[in-house]
Amino acid sequence: MQKRKGGVTAAKGYCAAAAEAGIKYSGRNDMALIYSEAPCLAAGMFTSNIVKAAPVQFDRKQIDSFPYARAIIVNSGIANACTGSDGLDVCRIEARAASKALGINENEVLLGSTGVIGMQLPVEKLEAGIMALAAAKEHSAKAGTAAERAIMTTDTVPKECAYTFTIDGNGADAPEVTVTLGGMSKGSGMIHPNMCTMLCYVTTDVAITKELLDEAVRSVVPDTFNMISVDGDTSTNDTIICLANGLAGNPVINEKNGDYEQFVEALKALCADLARKMASDGEGASKLIETHVVNADTKENARKLAKSVIGSNLVKAAVFGKDANWGRIICALGYSGVDFDPEKVDLYYVSEDGEKSILVCSQGADSPYSEDKATQLLSGKVVTILCDMNSGRESATAWGCDLTYDYVKINADYRS
Amino acid sequence: MQKRKGGVTAAKGYCAAAAEAGIKYSGRNDMALIYSEAPCLAAGMFTSNIVKAAPVQFDRKQIDSFPYARAIIVNSGIANACTGSDGLDVCRIEARAASKALGINENEVLLGSTGVIGMQLPVEKLEAGIMALAAAKEHSAKAGTAAERAIMTTDTVPKECAYTFTIDGNGADAPEVTVTLGGMSKGSGMIHPNMCTMLCYVTTDVAITKELLDEAVRSVVPDTFNMISVDGDTSTNDTIICLANGLAGNPVINEKNGDYEQFVEALKALCADLARKMASDGEGASKLIETHVVNADTKENARKLAKSVIGSNLVKAAVFGKDANWGRIICALGYSGVDFDPEKVDLYYVSEDGEKSILVCSQGADSPYSEDKATQLLSGKVVTILCDMNSGRESATAWGCDLTYDYVKINADYRS
Repeated sequence: MQKRKGGVTAAKGYCAAAAEAGIKYSGRNDMALIYSEAPCLAAGMFTSNIVKAAPVQFDRKQIDSFPYARAIIVNSGIANACTGSDGLDVCRIEARAASKALGINENEVLLGSTGVIGMQLPVEKLEAGIMALAAAKEHSAKAGTAAERAIMTTDTVPKECAYTFTIDGNGADAPEVTVTLGGMSKGSGMIHPNMCTMLCYVTTDVAITKELLDEAVRSVVPDTFNMISVDGDTSTNDTIICLANGLAGNPVINEKNGDYEQFVEALKALCADLARKMASDGEGASKLIETHVVNADTKENARKLAKSVIGSNLVKAAVFGKDANWGRIICALGYSGVDFDPEKVDLYYVSEDGEKSILVCSQGADSPYSEDKATQLLSGKVVTILCDMNSGRESATAWGCDLTYDYVKINADYRS
Repeated sequence: MQKRKGGVTAAKGYCAAAAEAGIKYSGRNDMALIYSEAPCLAAGMFTSNIVKAAPVQFDRKQIDSFPYARAIIVNSGIANACTGSDGLDVCRIEARAASKALGINENEVLLGSTGVIGMQLPVEKLEAGIMALAAAKEHSAKAGTAAERAIMTTDTVPKECAYTFTIDGNGADAPEVTVTLGGMSKGSGMIHPNMCTMLCYVTTDVAITKELLDEAVRSVVPDTFNMISVDGDTSTNDTIICLANGLAGNPVINEKNGDYEQFVEALKALCADLARKMASDGEGASKLIETHVVNADTKENARKLAKSVIGSNLVKAAVFGKDANWGRIICALGYSGVDFDPEKVDLYYVSEDGEKSILVCSQGADSPYSEDKATQLLSGKVVTILCDMNSGRESATAWGCDLTYDYVKINADYRS
């Protein structure tokens, strides 16, 4: 498996485009298209929030009801959430417009929206935007980045990446085949996302069955997107969709063989990459906080413990203040809902390269350490916290960011 | 039932004192004593955090093992949490010192601490402080307020109140008896408290059995202290202790009669009063957020929904920005874990006197309203949100505060 340049247009047969529809922003692109030259199988996971935006309801139904997808249309500015039956009508109008502009079936169109809740989308602007997207689509890295930029809201940097791996014919004499996966995402979180919503789109040219594509997506989300948190708020619009068009030409993956394992590994690397990018671009963030929990009794408990630490406002504020206040870390472990023995817990700060570390809490109590060294480890762009539970063999990693004045500023001013 | 002036010294037979022990702060009192001239029955509830501070472990054992309590010694500055067996030794030393200074049994002493986690308390300073407290104790409102001020950390105002009610001999010819309850608290939260910890002490002269005192405390906490949140962090030290010395002279309450109901009503009013005071003095808060959920299907769901709203960083930041962004409110209801129909939900902002209200979301979708009026309702010191679920008859109220620059400032700088 290798990382390579590019995003959603990296895999064979995918085009992208961006357009300025003037939905809410002005002077920037606010609509994006991802398009596949060949029909794709699609898998999706969506917000667990009871309040589900119209495009979330629409996509869930499309993916479950129809065999193929060809295009994803996404807008920023307005989330099309809490918009009632009018909001769902807008989805149908969008699908019809995309069908016409792209020459595909209405049921091959998927949708995404991100932005303010409770406002209706302007239909005519959407329709014009879709026409522009169809005309502009191309299979270039530049087009992929433009699409990613068009769906950003409070994001400060575009988030895309791509990975490849080689299928050697699964032991047979078949020729080697290169499979590519590309992805783009915006926002921050799935379980605890920002109101600006996490949207993530993955394109791949792998040939795989719909069942295994779905299973692959479900197997990587718990340790990637579900392990990031910016502010504890789960959006109405969170979406991850993975399209697979089969153009790599590999023997179709129809069982959990070595090819499947390789695909899952690459998909997990890609999703972890995007998840980490989202956490470090959390609203107002000045630092990425990476928390490793090791030697927990169960995998699920390891995840809960790691997420409790990165979700703590007090830990986040301490990291912003470069304060090695480990009491807040053990406190967050303590209210995670996981049962453990506090007197077994060791806490460390680790340098980004993993070379240096300091033990700040040993067996649940203070361990003498140099505040200067701690401040140094807390001064970089990445702060790594290691929690050794000493009570088993399971581990998990979660990603979050510090809580800063800018978080408050962004969210107190967001709508105005 | 009537509200009256005063705090922990309002009821008959209670004294209080404050002293400067120089534990961590300088130039201010940092130790407090609450003392009863007669033996008290005691009831307590403590943090649900797995990591429990030494005084929490100590008090739980004292209350469960011994029939009476006479004194509570509290310090601020250091929390005596994550201090291992040394921390528990310090508790025993404190109890011994208090026993000697006050002429009471060691097992009649309860303790509380609030402040930084992971540091050991300085024993000699504590012992000197306890001597000073014993010498200074008096039955005056001034002494009660001084005790309250001594346990404050990032609190900006002292929080105390008192209530009285009359027992008419429970229908018999016995003379009327006035029962008094007084209380003081610091910090913000029980389920979601600030690291600086919620400590709450209630004193009353009512005559009641230990079982019913305990039951009364347990019955009022879910709708009072458990309904406030400042930052979602549950401390290692949270404590509520209620002492009852029986000096009011009422016929002992030993069954759930009218007297018991009156006592519970007064205790609930007192706890709600203190809870509200804590929420409005949340770290960095500029506004109290009061969320009423009405017409929910069950009481427990009403509580969960109300707490989800006041716990949302995005709602809190919007209130700080005087932004009537109702999408964030319905989103927070949606991820509360409660199942409901979003298309039945109506959301209102209500003025503090309850006279004016504006409907901002009707049946889960936008309801046209004047942004000017909304901004006006969001400009006061109290912002009241009403969530009508239209799906049952149960209601609950939760209290929180806005998320401000000062919250970040206080918590990024707390230890330094």
